[in-house]
Amino acid sequence: MLDVCLLGTGGMMPLPNRWLTALMLRYNGKQILIDAGEGTQIAIKEKGISVNPIDIICITHFHADHVSGLPGLFLSMGNAEKTTPLLMIGPKGLAQVVNSLRVIAPGLPFEIQFHEIMGDEESIEFDGFTIDAYKVNHSVPCYGYSMRVHRKGKFDAQRAKAQNIPLKFWNPLQKGETVEWEGKVFTPDMVLGESRKGLKVTYTTDTRPTERIVEAAKDADLFICEGMYGEADKKSKARANRHMMMTEAAEIGAKAQPKEMWLTHYSPAMMRPEQYVKELRQIFEPLKAAKDGWVKVLNFEED
Amino acid sequence: MLDVCLLGTGGMMPLPNRWLTALMLRYNGKQILIDAGEGTQIAIKEKGISVNPIDIICITHFHADHVSGLPGLFLSMGNAEKTTPLLMIGPKGLAQVVNSLRVIAPGLPFEIQFHEIMGDEESIEFDGFTIDAYKVNHSVPCYGYSMRVHRKGKFDAQRAKAQNIPLKFWNPLQKGETVEWEGKVFTPDMVLGESRKGLKVTYTTDTRPTERIVEAAKDADLFICEGMYGEADKKSKARANRHMMMTEAAEIGAKAQPKEMWLTHYSPAMMRPEQYVKELRQIFEPLKAAKDGWVKVLNFEED
Repeated sequence: MLDVCLLGTGGMMPLPNRWLTALMLRYNGKQILIDAGEGTQIAIKEKGISVNPIDIICITHFHADHVSGLPGLFLSMGNAEKTTPLLMIGPKGLAQVVNSLRVIAPGLPFEIQFHEIMGDEESIEFDGFTIDAYKVNHSVPCYGYSMRVHRKGKFDAQRAKAQNIPLKFWNPLQKGETVEWEGKVFTPDMVLGESRKGLKVTYTTDTRPTERIVEAAKDADLFICEGMYGEADKKSKARANRHMMMTEAAEIGAKAQPKEMWLTHYSPAMMRPEQYVKELRQIFEPLKAAKDGWVKVLNFEED
Repeated sequence: MLDVCLLGTGGMMPLPNRWLTALMLRYNGKQILIDAGEGTQIAIKEKGISVNPIDIICITHFHADHVSGLPGLFLSMGNAEKTTPLLMIGPKGLAQVVNSLRVIAPGLPFEIQFHEIMGDEESIEFDGFTIDAYKVNHSVPCYGYSMRVHRKGKFDAQRAKAQNIPLKFWNPLQKGETVEWEGKVFTPDMVLGESRKGLKVTYTTDTRPTERIVEAAKDADLFICEGMYGEADKKSKARANRHMMMTEAAEIGAKAQPKEMWLTHYSPAMMRPEQYVKELRQIFEPLKAAKDGWVKVLNFEED
């Protein structure tokens, strides 16, 4: 089960009643946060989520609306007695930016580890899931992220029996462990069927449309995408500032065909993002204009 | 008329429904902000105040809950097309801290000027008002601030006539201007009576009680003071972290006798600051437990 919470839907600056765009992903006791703008820690508290077990923070880019909440969040994590390391993933320069901001958040009780993405894309493996970073097209280096949760194949008792694997090893093999016994080595692939469809959430903000985003959003159970402007006359502004029109986002959706799509990162001038939805659904039907605090629980498909 | 707005009442970390402590003072077209924590710019917007005309930001100290909102606030000020210089007043090291935070807020359309307070106290004169900084007793260098609005003496027509000052100069002299005419120099003090009582707001957070705070709050029309803890068993914690008990704040009020007193900077664990007020008013009757967004308009006394 992958628990997704879109903490805010604002772009550029926080507003009364609209937090800045940030995403919390929770899977198997791990918490992964994407971006932390001014007020993100308050949005987290509003949802009743503890900041202590945040394990990974992915940063899309170094504009203030995506990182200005880091010092306060770090201090609140320390205050919540986090002592395990925090892994931060982000563009080149991450350590320097975070350490500059830490001028007002020194002396934390946990270590911060940095993973700077150097190329156009990178996949980082964790126990049971992968985080894919892929470069997008903004005014400064910026990455989108996918989180893919893996699902092992089904245990095949017939195969286990046929290979004379003792019953007592079935359970560890099913969990993915390798077993040595009487000079023999039993590996999970000897008893598991093909990997089954896992879960995937793809997240993209602050970019012009690109084919790489389409590729990233393919097979996604949920695709969360910037929809900065709704009015057609904002297109030149979107181009100039390297942001995305809602219609452009919908067209990415139509090409990639994720199961569901949420728009976010609205311009502060946009009061009612939902007013565009009817028209956008002509382009891609599973599109929704998200609101602050939307939650979705993704489960593996039934066999 | 001096317009006072306490933007938030929280200490340590912002909470849902409680912004961090910060004060906005507006007088004669000037806006002075004291402290800018995470979310302060949202609190300002909630009150319908524009960030463009913020002229001066006073910083008490460099703990995150008092400065973490600066980068976002700067960007919003730039976005609101502020081009006039911003003066920042704060402890030694101010420029270094602010410039570190500006790693995520480069390229602003206005200049930032720094005034670092070097000694235990300093008074800075502006047109029509004075800002007094005075050192308090916290775990890091920290200052309290008073804003004093001056009021000229009454115009004395008898004296002006007796000195044969032509009628056409009465108005500029009344406004405080010096006039030269036919080799003579007329100065305001020749026609104005003694200065009259002005207005004074005193602000103190993040400190143990000190005699200097009592002195600062004397004659204040409004004294805004930290009241971090209410329960008596928090006294050792208050001592250790250099914060103030509500009763200690009330005792300062009783000694200084400001016209009105507001408590602020409540511990995140304190849910209902108002529960202590009845008891505290036994110590100092004009004390109130402020809430986010409290406003007070101070006017000169009637003659």
